[in-house]
Amino acid sequence: MSKYKDLKEMVYEANMEIPRESLAIVTFGNVSGIDRQAGVIAIKPSGVPYSRLRVEDIVVVDLENQVVEGNLRPSSDTKTHTLLYKNFEEIGGVCHTHSTYAVAWAQAQQAIPNLGTTHADHLVQPIPVTAVMSDEAITRDYEIETGHQIIQTLKEGAMSPQEVEMILVACHGPFTWGKDPAKAIYNAIVLEEIAKMAYLTLQINPETSPIKSTMIEKHYFRKHGKDAYYGQGC
Amino acid sequence: MSKYKDLKEMVYEANMEIPRESLAIVTFGNVSGIDRQAGVIAIKPSGVPYSRLRVEDIVVVDLENQVVEGNLRPSSDTKTHTLLYKNFEEIGGVCHTHSTYAVAWAQAQQAIPNLGTTHADHLVQPIPVTAVMSDEAITRDYEIETGHQIIQTLKEGAMSPQEVEMILVACHGPFTWGKDPAKAIYNAIVLEEIAKMAYLTLQINPETSPIKSTMIEKHYFRKHGKDAYYGQGC
Amino acid sequence: MSKYKDLKEMVYEANMEIPRESLAIVTFGNVSGIDRQAGVIAIKPSGVPYSRLRVEDIVVVDLENQVVEGNLRPSSDTKTHTLLYKNFEEIGGVCHTHSTYAVAWAQAQQAIPNLGTTHADHLVQPIPVTAVMSDEAITRDYEIETGHQIIQTLKEGAMSPQEVEMILVACHGPFTWGKDPAKAIYNAIVLEEIAKMAYLTLQINPETSPIKSTMIEKHYFRKHGKDAYYGQGC
Amino acid sequence: MSKYKDLKEMVYEANMEIPRESLAIVTFGNVSGIDRQAGVIAIKPSGVPYSRLRVEDIVVVDLENQVVEGNLRPSSDTKTHTLLYKNFEEIGGVCHTHSTYAVAWAQAQQAIPNLGTTHADHLVQPIPVTAVMSDEAITRDYEIETGHQIIQTLKEGAMSPQEVEMILVACHGPFTWGKDPAKAIYNAIVLEEIAKMAYLTLQINPETSPIKSTMIEKHYFRKHGKDAYYGQGC
Repeated sequence: MSKYKDLKEMVYEANMEIPRESLAIVTFGNVSGIDRQAGVIAIKPSGVPYSRLRVEDIVVVDLENQVVEGNLRPSSDTKTHTLLYKNFEEIGGVCHTHSTYAVAWAQAQQAIPNLGTTHADHLVQPIPVTAVMSDEAITRDYEIETGHQIIQTLKEGAMSPQEVEMILVACHGPFTWGKDPAKAIYNAIVLEEIAKMAYLTLQINPETSPIKSTMIEKHYFRKHGKDAYYGQGC
Repeated sequence: MSKYKDLKEMVYEANMEIPRESLAIVTFGNVSGIDRQAGVIAIKPSGVPYSRLRVEDIVVVDLENQVVEGNLRPSSDTKTHTLLYKNFEEIGGVCHTHSTYAVAWAQAQQAIPNLGTTHADHLVQPIPVTAVMSDEAITRDYEIETGHQIIQTLKEGAMSPQEVEMILVACHGPFTWGKDPAKAIYNAIVLEEIAKMAYLTLQINPETSPIKSTMIEKHYFRKHGKDAYYGQGC
Repeated sequence: MSKYKDLKEMVYEANMEIPRESLAIVTFGNVSGIDRQAGVIAIKPSGVPYSRLRVEDIVVVDLENQVVEGNLRPSSDTKTHTLLYKNFEEIGGVCHTHSTYAVAWAQAQQAIPNLGTTHADHLVQPIPVTAVMSDEAITRDYEIETGHQIIQTLKEGAMSPQEVEMILVACHGPFTWGKDPAKAIYNAIVLEEIAKMAYLTLQINPETSPIKSTMIEKHYFRKHGKDAYYGQGC
Repeated sequence: MSKYKDLKEMVYEANMEIPRESLAIVTFGNVSGIDRQAGVIAIKPSGVPYSRLRVEDIVVVDLENQVVEGNLRPSSDTKTHTLLYKNFEEIGGVCHTHSTYAVAWAQAQQAIPNLGTTHADHLVQPIPVTAVMSDEAITRDYEIETGHQIIQTLKEGAMSPQEVEMILVACHGPFTWGKDPAKAIYNAIVLEEIAKMAYLTLQINPETSPIKSTMIEKHYFRKHGKDAYYGQGC
């Protein structure tokens, strides 16, 4: 029996939320999780449809992207995941989807403005978008550079990966993360809904102004930090 | 066995309509019901996903928001619910969701104009939107102030809570109510559909004028008041 | 056992397509069918949710709208149905829904232009929209006047109810009909899809011109008339 | 037992993806597959609803469109399919749907610009749209001319049917193809999603520029050609 059984099951469950929540069609999207003590991550195999995905198909790789366990190739986005784990030391899960509205904002190369409490419940800032990758970076090592862009965009905006758990990679789509794989996919679900709400709001009134900062903070700190009073405190 | 069993079951059933009717993702949204004789309301616990919600998880609080029965924290919106019950004396249920199109109108800070008979069957007026809350009110007691804003918006528009059972809280989302929890969630379903229809109508023709008052009244009074002839009269 | 058993079952089945095809929420919408020999129509009862609707709930009325069989009130739109049966002598089923995109066009008070072969497979003309009803007509006998408006709109456009089996009632929503209840609901499904396609097309390019008449005729006569070669000829 | 059993089952399965993936309502759409050794294609029968379609209903025709096996009429689009098989010698499956967003672009008579990696994963080019058919061609042999238009549009754009496996027929809808029926329907699913993403992107920002060519090539060649590293290499 696999010594990574629990990690693989957690990662499998999080991946299966992608089709259940209609976050991607066919084989698109992938979720990973890390076991920091063992120094391995578990991730969806590349190009396998969700309808055929089994727990035993989940691939275990080390932080140098070498397969440690599994008969299939890991997701082609694996290097992006491992780079994020190396740089965001407190996260336990990463998710990448091609969810429709989040992709639309990524393709339009626009950050999603903070227009209401659904957004503010999760994030103080607009949902950031990376710059378009340079030709040099694309041809160098594309998946690693995608990770660098995510890290760089947070750094430039002075955003920590604990405060901002979601981003749009320009012309590509969303990446989200969190304390475990379940939180990473939760953030992908929330991001898609926020992206759709912002889309509709600006179609109704393109001049809609962002929600005021006092209300952002009220909602964000209902759910986060020491004075949070949303949820069951666990 | 709980002495609030019937109330809790009614509130549980109404809450489960939220995911069934796709009115909110993950844990968002909540429905409550009141037993005015017992002086208690039953409401969804805070932050519990619908897939794990059970009848016994429904929290019973008194009108001062103190838990009377239940092991979980009540919804973080509880104070808004209790204030509405205290001020709208004939209502028996309250519902709050983050349904997509209703939130878009709330974020755009626009009332939903009455453009057709689907709207007029339920409401003579546009669906009202509150003002944006003042910084002072936000930092005072946010959930109570949300309730005050709803009450104030109806009062300013000379609308009774029997005639107008739905409202948009600016930058936040919809609240609905009714004679019992089932009617409150029914109104949330109807509001989301009206919000989508109005959105699409104004995308087709931004100059669409509201439906004429004679047709509004014809449709509203087919369903309401002493001369109503819609439904089975019970 | 009811002597109208077959008619009631056919009408029940057609009504149940409304929620299955997401053509209306809650209790909205109704389908009827006629037995011209017996001089009766069967129709959905008023205000009954689809989840509770049973074959025995279907109400049978005569052409003067008097209940012949059934314990429930017939749909509040019954008079519109009977008037259409009296005036469109070859039809066997009528359907009314509040499907979202068709309602949006009805509220925008615009006919749906014929923009492609999905439309042309069913209809040569734009899908017509009635005028807004006069105040006098609204207060006279609303449901009968709705029927008159449908008949009048076809007459003014020199359209026969065999060629044009679908219409939008301004500020209200779609009515469709056909040789039997199944064809009436089929037309309601098709109309909603055409309405959505036309909406999206004009959002992409508001200047899109209608499909050329040679292609309309080619597609229409693939499916209709003596030279039709679509389907199984039965 | 049918000597075309395997082909018919493969074609049946591919057709059943159309309703499962919501690519068309009622009876619209059809998938075919070819057995090049036997010189026959199997295709959906005309006008049969998916809910009633069975493996034995799949019709087998030769390359002159004559029925070789089956009791039903083949799809009215059969001649388009056979012409594509004759001209695109390496393909094994063809699919035609009326999926909503792809039809909207076809009706707007616009190619779908390549705006992001979801598109670039499948196609370097914009998704092409044919010219509107001439009156002469429409009245000559419509279904054959539809095939000619597809072939002609690829030829004029110097696109091979291996590189470009999807196209929009102006005022009509999408055709897709691939090495087998499963790949043809896969391409129809992907095309509809790309069509929706492009629609939303241009609604957010009508001036969005196409994705840069280095990124297109990076993504396309992750999935195609000798250096591909997406999927399981089989």
